[in-house]
Amino acid sequence: MKKLLNNPNEVVEEMLRGIEITNPDVDYDVEGAVISRKNKTRKVGVVSGGGSGHEPAHAGYVGYGMLDAAVSGNVFASPSPDRVLRGIQLADAKEGVLLVIKNYAGDIMNFEIAEELAKEEGIEVDHVVVKDDVAVEDSDDSTGRRGIAGTVFVHKIAGAKAESGASLAEVKRVAQKAIQNVRSFGVSLSSCTIPAVGKAGFTIEENKMEVGMGIHGEPGIIKTKLGTSKEVSNLIVNRILEDMDYGDNSEVAVMVNGLGGTPLMELYILAADIDHELKEHGLQPIKYYVGNYMTAIEMAGASCSLLKLDDELKELLLMPCNTSALKE
Amino acid sequence: MKKLLNNPNEVVEEMLRGIEITNPDVDYDVEGAVISRKNKTRKVGVVSGGGSGHEPAHAGYVGYGMLDAAVSGNVFASPSPDRVLRGIQLADAKEGVLLVIKNYAGDIMNFEIAEELAKEEGIEVDHVVVKDDVAVEDSDDSTGRRGIAGTVFVHKIAGAKAESGASLAEVKRVAQKAIQNVRSFGVSLSSCTIPAVGKAGFTIEENKMEVGMGIHGEPGIIKTKLGTSKEVSNLIVNRILEDMDYGDNSEVAVMVNGLGGTPLMELYILAADIDHELKEHGLQPIKYYVGNYMTAIEMAGASCSLLKLDDELKELLLMPCNTSALKE
Repeated sequence: MKKLLNNPNEVVEEMLRGIEITNPDVDYDVEGAVISRKNKTRKVGVVSGGGSGHEPAHAGYVGYGMLDAAVSGNVFASPSPDRVLRGIQLADAKEGVLLVIKNYAGDIMNFEIAEELAKEEGIEVDHVVVKDDVAVEDSDDSTGRRGIAGTVFVHKIAGAKAESGASLAEVKRVAQKAIQNVRSFGVSLSSCTIPAVGKAGFTIEENKMEVGMGIHGEPGIIKTKLGTSKEVSNLIVNRILEDMDYGDNSEVAVMVNGLGGTPLMELYILAADIDHELKEHGLQPIKYYVGNYMTAIEMAGASCSLLKLDDELKELLLMPCNTSALKE
Repeated sequence: MKKLLNNPNEVVEEMLRGIEITNPDVDYDVEGAVISRKNKTRKVGVVSGGGSGHEPAHAGYVGYGMLDAAVSGNVFASPSPDRVLRGIQLADAKEGVLLVIKNYAGDIMNFEIAEELAKEEGIEVDHVVVKDDVAVEDSDDSTGRRGIAGTVFVHKIAGAKAESGASLAEVKRVAQKAIQNVRSFGVSLSSCTIPAVGKAGFTIEENKMEVGMGIHGEPGIIKTKLGTSKEVSNLIVNRILEDMDYGDNSEVAVMVNGLGGTPLMELYILAADIDHELKEHGLQPIKYYVGNYMTAIEMAGASCSLLKLDDELKELLLMPCNTSALKE
């Protein structure tokens, strides 16, 4: 294992400490493994989280206009209910708290237990579940689709609505609307190494790629010949559009997301080809996000998330935000 | 070679096209391989550039408060004088143009030729040369130190001053001041592959790191046992402080820069350890930048750049900017 770290079993604590030190707008609650906003205002709290290893997700999205708290589990492992409860408590400003959960069985269970515990404390809590990955209908870890990079759009939409002073029901409504309108799909070129494990969990041959692999290395649809950027773009866009009718001339926001080890050069090449594909299908990409937004440690590969916009989603998406990973 | 691309010989053109498509505030001049700001205002133009493969440098820094134009060469190859001249022309708003050059023989030669050609056209041009890497005094490619990630600080300082309406002489003065006050040092854990070459230029053994390697894979000081984050932080900070007297209680801005293949998790762990080292040495880190700012394609590793701040540099550093790679 070739990594810059100290104790492989303490990477999450040390990383969260680094986030706290370098971002003056957040606090780190050690016991709960929670990064939360320093300046709390009276509004609906938005909380997300999950296993670590997806940086900048989720702690990088804590700040004005997005999340109020992000809860971290160990690498690729769901945070325990007590950690999630701590996140809810830290985000609670007496206007209710919305949990944005990625669709994995462990996350669902732990976030829902925490929701019940928080309700017993008198905190109003509700949740949404993101399931944007069109690769697989069910997996070992999820019933229905997995939640991947499209989750960042949900953070943005829910966070913007909460910032506007909307009620919990209204914040939940727009978050659900974003979830209904976002789909993602990706390819992986390499494995990744969980520090505490010390070696890659699998390998992908030199001339192959895994299509539809999950962000924890869960199997995809097929292992196939490594395609060109044009071929991969065609595959990604077709697969997404087969799954959902984006309509004619619809405006879309596009995230071309690196999985951690793929250089920005390749993401831009891919973005140009995806743009071509989208326009061929009569869609209007009005905003691009190109970079590492939801990673799988140092995995090479990329995913594309497409959010279909109506006036409401567009307005919320374009509202300002100020987090370490996304500023608008 | 495992990369998402089409033609390995056209990666720069395809990447620049992707940048243009995804960033509504810039134009792409195909002939000059220049990314430039769409809305030109009457102010000193700031131009930088160099070989490609360092993304988001430099095209990612084109925008309000930083660069007016970035000129790209092929991967790890200096842009030709005619390309640089095109960059100067595009950045020229009749108030003069400052070139920010990284200290490599090819860049110096080509940018200086372009400067002469532009002067013949009646454009007022001056330049500064960034040499922040304390690893080597001279190299095969540079006389004196190489320019690496500290260059981004120079873009920020010069860009902010130019945005304020200062004269070319004043913009040059603050850029020089930033150069005099910034030092960088890094370690590499892996090689990287130039697409047109198709295979890595060298290898670093599994348990080794190369200390002081350049951002094009130029040899460093020593190949040594892979250290922990704490050991690497100690090495980096000591090496920088041996080179320059940062004084007692000085305020510093700190860039913990990933070389492309190192996940954000590790950069945050490193940042926490670097913060500890800096405070041990009596320095006050007032602002952190953690991420991939100046890369070597998909090389694993990280560098740290330390900018010593006085009131003027601090004010300029903290001014707003709006580019795809840095927003403040």
